[in-house]
Amino acid sequence: MSALDLYMRRQRERIDAALDQHFPVDPPHPHRLVEAVRYSLLGGGKRVRPILVLASCEAVGGDTERALPYACAIEMIHTYSLIHDDLPAMDDDTMRRGRETSHVVFGEALAILAGDALLTEAFNLLAHTAARDPEPDRSWRAVREIAEAAGMRGMVGGQAADIAAQGITPALAMVEFIHVRKTGALLLAAVRVGAGIGGADDALLRPLTRYGECIGLAFQIADDILDAEAPSAVTGKPEGRDTQLHKATFPAVLGLPAAKQRARELLEQALDALRELDGRAGPLRDLARWVVARACEP
Amino acid sequence: MSALDLYMRRQRERIDAALDQHFPVDPPHPHRLVEAVRYSLLGGGKRVRPILVLASCEAVGGDTERALPYACAIEMIHTYSLIHDDLPAMDDDTMRRGRETSHVVFGEALAILAGDALLTEAFNLLAHTAARDPEPDRSWRAVREIAEAAGMRGMVGGQAADIAAQGITPALAMVEFIHVRKTGALLLAAVRVGAGIGGADDALLRPLTRYGECIGLAFQIADDILDAEAPSAVTGKPEGRDTQLHKATFPAVLGLPAAKQRARELLEQALDALRELDGRAGPLRDLARWVVARACEP
Repeated sequence: MSALDLYMRRQRERIDAALDQHFPVDPPHPHRLVEAVRYSLLGGGKRVRPILVLASCEAVGGDTERALPYACAIEMIHTYSLIHDDLPAMDDDTMRRGRETSHVVFGEALAILAGDALLTEAFNLLAHTAARDPEPDRSWRAVREIAEAAGMRGMVGGQAADIAAQGITPALAMVEFIHVRKTGALLLAAVRVGAGIGGADDALLRPLTRYGECIGLAFQIADDILDAEAPSAVTGKPEGRDTQLHKATFPAVLGLPAAKQRARELLEQALDALRELDGRAGPLRDLARWVVARACEP
Repeated sequence: MSALDLYMRRQRERIDAALDQHFPVDPPHPHRLVEAVRYSLLGGGKRVRPILVLASCEAVGGDTERALPYACAIEMIHTYSLIHDDLPAMDDDTMRRGRETSHVVFGEALAILAGDALLTEAFNLLAHTAARDPEPDRSWRAVREIAEAAGMRGMVGGQAADIAAQGITPALAMVEFIHVRKTGALLLAAVRVGAGIGGADDALLRPLTRYGECIGLAFQIADDILDAEAPSAVTGKPEGRDTQLHKATFPAVLGLPAAKQRARELLEQALDALRELDGRAGPLRDLARWVVARACEP
């Protein structure tokens, strides 16, 4: 097991334990709703976003314990977006992370509500966390950043553009527009929020922002490449699903070799952005390499 | 036109202008998504919740200009819940406020996203507002209160219970459980948040909380009575829709006369709670009377 594998496993365990605790099985919540939320939230994701929050906090010498609730909130928002994206009216996906999607198991109504609950409870967690924070300015900035990234100028806007573009032969600029918003915004927010809560000043936030922009896009390109190439045992989704849906993806526009080249360039730019940071940015560097290697190594 | 009519119209105009400004038609938002958000948000609701925020702030001598963004955020959350409740997988309603529902006009995918966008942007607005607030403690309390009311222990939990109860012969306790969460929680939050932002201390918050609990429930009972009795020209919805859906309502459990009696009792309790407040609580008193009179007067 590599150092990164160990690092990721350790952080994943912290995150999973915290998420589990936010949604106890007990009443007074209506039982099926809690079940639906827990099914999707604790269903074994890679936890890339919350790990980025913690790694970025660590990179600037911050206390990762303080960043943990923000990491959880971002994962809750990410999970809500997956549940809603999978709905029959959206991408109509029946498999995710190797298991049946929420609406297949719980029905559409409860899947919609489980997503709504996760989004709302993410902000509930943020509000409770920020209220206790000894440095409210940092907290507010973090909450604002997360809300912006998840909102119309970010994730929701990107998803709407993605749906509007289905079936249209996409131009590269449009694919980038969609991905920067749909996936890039929340990944960038993860990096910036972790650094901000860790106490980064502007001089540190600037290179980390550049890093976040690069790996945000690289992550989506890698995902698209995996969707096109990898067997479903690796992705947990049916093979070639994007092509079936005529999704606007980088491989569809550039072809696979050029898409891989673009991912590698973004990795170089991400690593270059971290040049002036010290050894504490090691996990951020490893995460960037891992994101691209998953899709681009032979 | 009565004093209350004038008051409501004036406040509605303030609220509508503020909401309109939060969702400008311009890019860079994807155009159709903005259109869908504006269609539901600016489609002429009664604005009961945001008016309660302003009236409650006024009742404690607060500056309503400061309460306005919280009022807008609550109305955005209310609107998102209507869009999602109307979806085919939920109540499958095609008419609302006298117009076609969002998914009929924009399709299911965009209706889901418009709801998601409104919920997220509500917290975005709250985070931006709180960050600028000279009294961050008040702000945080307000944001927490709104998130709690909209979350699993509030609105989303109530909606899940409502769906679970459809088709079951409901007991009175279950009907109350559902309504307290599904509609009551956000109405109560509107009253408490308005008062809190207005600077109310605990001695003032206590009677206002009692008022909010009473009119929260009275409002839902009145709505159920109107659904059962009023022609669709008044409700903007098809007549007797709750009965069609076998919804758990007060008239269904108690019968119409007893449901009306219960609403009148709640009105008395709401007015009694405000006994020690002065004339600035006039609009709150008038609003409570109006809520019940709409449904219970011959």
